[in-house]
Amino acid sequence: MKDILIIGAGPAGLTAAIYALRSGKSVLLLEAKQYGGQIVNTPDIENYPGLAHVSGYEFAENLYQQAKSFGAELVFETAAAIEDRGDHKVVRTTLDHTYEGRAVILATGAKNRPMGLEREEELIGRGISYCATCDGMFFRKKDVAVFGGGNTALEDALFLSNYCNKVYLIHRRDQFRGSDADLKKLTGRENVEFVLNCNVTKLLGEPRLSAIEVTDKLTGEIRTIEVAGLFVAIGQIPDNAAFSNVAALDEKGYIASGEDCLTKTPGIFYAVVCRT
Amino acid sequence: MKDILIIGAGPAGLTAAIYALRSGKSVLLLEAKQYGGQIVNTPDIENYPGLAHVSGYEFAENLYQQAKSFGAELVFETAAAIEDRGDHKVVRTTLDHTYEGRAVILATGAKNRPMGLEREEELIGRGISYCATCDGMFFRKKDVAVFGGGNTALEDALFLSNYCNKVYLIHRRDQFRGSDADLKKLTGRENVEFVLNCNVTKLLGEPRLSAIEVTDKLTGEIRTIEVAGLFVAIGQIPDNAAFSNVAALDEKGYIASGEDCLTKTPGIFYAVVCRT
Repeated sequence: MKDILIIGAGPAGLTAAIYALRSGKSVLLLEAKQYGGQIVNTPDIENYPGLAHVSGYEFAENLYQQAKSFGAELVFETAAAIEDRGDHKVVRTTLDHTYEGRAVILATGAKNRPMGLEREEELIGRGISYCATCDGMFFRKKDVAVFGGGNTALEDALFLSNYCNKVYLIHRRDQFRGSDADLKKLTGRENVEFVLNCNVTKLLGEPRLSAIEVTDKLTGEIRTIEVAGLFVAIGQIPDNAAFSNVAALDEKGYIASGEDCLTKTPGIFYAVVCRT
Repeated sequence: MKDILIIGAGPAGLTAAIYALRSGKSVLLLEAKQYGGQIVNTPDIENYPGLAHVSGYEFAENLYQQAKSFGAELVFETAAAIEDRGDHKVVRTTLDHTYEGRAVILATGAKNRPMGLEREEELIGRGISYCATCDGMFFRKKDVAVFGGGNTALEDALFLSNYCNKVYLIHRRDQFRGSDADLKKLTGRENVEFVLNCNVTKLLGEPRLSAIEVTDKLTGEIRTIEVAGLFVAIGQIPDNAAFSNVAALDEKGYIASGEDCLTKTPGIFYAVVCRT
């Protein structure tokens, strides 16, 4: 029996572990893939306060070693179900092992929704990014594209148009789900070009992205656009369905919780680094 | 004219600067003392995710250099007044200089309320701490005292009683302002001793704190208590009165703002690392 079981060993889960262990609690982390979460795919982080330049891999490794130095234990297993037994909780994994804890912290995070294109994963950090705030500055004065039609896509395009040479905003429809205010600002920017009713259908360039192919959904016309960067903003995929018995989910599938980190079940908490 | 003036170059202000500059905005920071804020007084930080051990001074220096590398400018002046001119704001300093910005971020922070004792400042990080979450683990299995009677004091005492040998909770009154639930938990802990109606009146030990003298307010009796650590939890002092024309303050003097960082004035924002 541990004091706290933490599901997910990304930055939220590892940070929770550090604080729990330094409070004198025993901790077991359960991680389905590799510790560090999404940050592992980032070649260079320059906006983490206090760390001038660090690779995502190195950051994840440091964070894990830090948690380990305080006594964190980690098993590489996928949590499949949580049973609330009041004063303790039982987590069952896909290997059919069970782990018991007095409390559980859900730090499951989310994955970026991929476009599903060939070479997409290989080009992450080599022109493809899922976070304009994180990576935009690497494309200063260059041509970039944003793919998406929601608030994130509009905000990313605005953000990038502040300092990129040109921003193509590529959207599968001709109407945007994002805010009208942002859309209005974007239409006033000379360096923003709307590419509507189009899908990104091919990624070009070696070893870095240098161009994308977009296909018009109405005419079938194919156009090649030279860009150094492509910001993919077509959503995130949380994965919390297995825990909906103990934690209410919102309409997008995230755990419904505020800054207090509470869920509907006493003793089960939610930790997240960045609300999207 | 800068895009953004930031008042305060502690962790909140410097982090805001990094994100603003990487968004293509120009930034000027105004700092009354030294950059880094309260963290500068911390000899060893071990709970900052991703940085195993770093001194507060080194952390502050790294953070400042990081902001500077993106183009942050800093003047060592005390902001005394802000005038809202709609599309821009004017900050006047105590040197009677004025600085103009399209937006202002208030990152003024707060100071820990000191006890006002001799050697108090010298012993910070040498036995005296203002943050149990930050520094408690350095006193594992040792005897410590907490001074205060509010929620922070009760929470600190509970937290420390998880792994310290003994916790003295020293309070100037015999009633606590903190939560009854925490108080009830504390009275059930064998390693917690209440020292009521007492003031801490002297700090002993060389070069580190090794004992404190407490004086009973009713009887005048003086008692010496041997402790390796003293956690001072008698409140924080924000300093925002000069800006109350543009940002509403709460009853404690903090700027009234939520996670959205908005104030009552468009273009004036609030940044804070840790809400107390």
